[in-house]
Amino acid sequence: MAGTVTVPGSSVPSTPLLKDELDIVIPTIRNLDFLEMWRPFFQPYHLIIVQDGDPSKVIKVPEGFDYELYNRNDINRILGPKASCISFKDSACRCFGYMVSKKKYVFTIDDDCFVAKDPSGKDINALEQHIKNLLSPSTPFFFNTLYDPYREGADFVRGYPFSLREGAPTAVSHGLWLNIPDYDAPTQMVKPRERNSRYVDAVLTIPKGTLFPMCGMNLAFDRQLIGPAMYFGLMGDGQPIGRYDDMWAGWCVKVICDHLSLGVKTGLPYLWHSKASNPFVNLKKEYKGIFWQEDIIPFFQNATLSKECDTVQKCYISLSEQVKEKLGKIDPYFVKLADAMVTWIEAWDELNPSDAVVAAGNGKAAAK
Amino acid sequence: MAGTVTVPGSSVPSTPLLKDELDIVIPTIRNLDFLEMWRPFFQPYHLIIVQDGDPSKVIKVPEGFDYELYNRNDINRILGPKASCISFKDSACRCFGYMVSKKKYVFTIDDDCFVAKDPSGKDINALEQHIKNLLSPSTPFFFNTLYDPYREGADFVRGYPFSLREGAPTAVSHGLWLNIPDYDAPTQMVKPRERNSRYVDAVLTIPKGTLFPMCGMNLAFDRQLIGPAMYFGLMGDGQPIGRYDDMWAGWCVKVICDHLSLGVKTGLPYLWHSKASNPFVNLKKEYKGIFWQEDIIPFFQNATLSKECDTVQKCYISLSEQVKEKLGKIDPYFVKLADAMVTWIEAWDELNPSDAVVAAGNGKAAAK
Repeated sequence: MAGTVTVPGSSVPSTPLLKDELDIVIPTIRNLDFLEMWRPFFQPYHLIIVQDGDPSKVIKVPEGFDYELYNRNDINRILGPKASCISFKDSACRCFGYMVSKKKYVFTIDDDCFVAKDPSGKDINALEQHIKNLLSPSTPFFFNTLYDPYREGADFVRGYPFSLREGAPTAVSHGLWLNIPDYDAPTQMVKPRERNSRYVDAVLTIPKGTLFPMCGMNLAFDRQLIGPAMYFGLMGDGQPIGRYDDMWAGWCVKVICDHLSLGVKTGLPYLWHSKASNPFVNLKKEYKGIFWQEDIIPFFQNATLSKECDTVQKCYISLSEQVKEKLGKIDPYFVKLADAMVTWIEAWDELNPSDAVVAAGNGKAAAK
Repeated sequence: MAGTVTVPGSSVPSTPLLKDELDIVIPTIRNLDFLEMWRPFFQPYHLIIVQDGDPSKVIKVPEGFDYELYNRNDINRILGPKASCISFKDSACRCFGYMVSKKKYVFTIDDDCFVAKDPSGKDINALEQHIKNLLSPSTPFFFNTLYDPYREGADFVRGYPFSLREGAPTAVSHGLWLNIPDYDAPTQMVKPRERNSRYVDAVLTIPKGTLFPMCGMNLAFDRQLIGPAMYFGLMGDGQPIGRYDDMWAGWCVKVICDHLSLGVKTGLPYLWHSKASNPFVNLKKEYKGIFWQEDIIPFFQNATLSKECDTVQKCYISLSEQVKEKLGKIDPYFVKLADAMVTWIEAWDELNPSDAVVAAGNGKAAAK
């Protein structure tokens, strides 16, 4: 078990924030050498590694990290028949890690993501920024033109209603990527050389009623506030679609956060996304999604949740019913997905009996 | 009349963008020495100066600028009894300049705003950035996490629906301020030393359905698309309120842009706001607004415009009726304001008979 770490000459705080309240979830199919670079920032925290693909393969984790690792056999053993809701051969399997975590907060990162540098050349402690984002309120009900009003040196501008300055609890912190931007296959193909070199020094709340494309590469959230909605769907092996796992979660999460008056932030921190995935492989995974999302977006824009939906679980079950009814017409896949959404919630509640009670309490307090 | 200007060693384009299609509107009570600093950027353009306060005072404009100047006597002469809708002893009078302009675009700036520098130390050509913002589309229907997707080096991220990538016409470009932030009186009082030194290198679209505090200090817009909604209300002399002129315009503009599927951007360009206004004077002007806005914001959040409102003028008249009916209950001031909104539209159409026809055409094309 890693203790408090001080790294001479680094900017790592001597007592890492939320050390015992946050898990780092990493889906992978390879040895986790990338953790070496993150050691000063991640070593104090507990890691949950979700091994995708062949369970007989041994994944090497660098020395000194405190971790638990689950492969497909573990998932099947722990969830039994409910394991069907966890994707196989797709990084969507990471959401199993959210489910088995016992912490209040989760940070998830891809294993091809490295430490980025800020414009002054300093290493960015992405996790620390995510924690700051999660621990300060959001402003979903009115837009602040100077971005995050709770940040040092900033505030609410003239004309911002005073009754809204307390903000809303933050459920999600969505970070960004320098170098390889998170593009779809068509954009990758059209702009093979495009790199993101623009460091935008801002964190902002995505306003209520607005959907966004949530990327799972660099993402943190409050499990207690929104965990049961962070389901990454059915992707990969045996499914007609891939690379929409995080998008699906993002749409569901945003609709539920809007309903429960919770905030979703995007912007800082950046990390360094090292490698573009193969656009041809991606196109194959994405192409049905490219069509389907034209119907899925209006569906989520118009989805409504009743007053009775006062917990994340109830909201999510209600969404699953709407998915089955409305999106089921597009393709039988959505009927299967809607069923998997229900299975996911059942599995979540089974593994998190006390969380379910807490969530109910939070939900009641936060519900409109 | 100033011609095309090239300034050796500067970044000013040799053919200024939209030279004959944009007016710069400046409200003032003093000599316009601040223009010296802006000369390389503004000299090619036509200025409309709206002189506030004592019309017998002579306002000096630096040599070489092409301008027209209106004082209160001019406003009274041109508008006759309709001049009652133009505020006196308040920078809200600037909207008279929007009305008499014959150009497609307007940029308005306060006379205590100077040229800011970007992080590399280069002078920022604020007007050029506004023009870029106005000439490229907006993305009000879905949030792009890498900010403006039309900017060099950026694009739409994975998961952004392809049907929405054409974007919407941009009606408004709202710029920001380094040094003195645009704070209300209470915040000025609580944080007298706060300065904005954070340069956020981003332009973003304010999503559909989200209101924002629009500041008139550094603002550009497409007169043909949204001009008739850019009314800065009744402020200053004889009115119970001040410093809500731009806010009022911003709320009306945003509701109408949302209805007509037009975009509103905020972010770059920055300018250097040199001087904080007196917080005690400001508090006196603002204090009724601080209470009233708690009702005004929900009013605008819930305001609806019918399908028949297919021009900005029709939208604005419909809003004025709702203001009278719903906000009139709060204070008789809003009944007077609602009447002034109607007078403003009558005056606008009188001075802009051909614009009215164009606007009707645009409105029809853009209406949902």
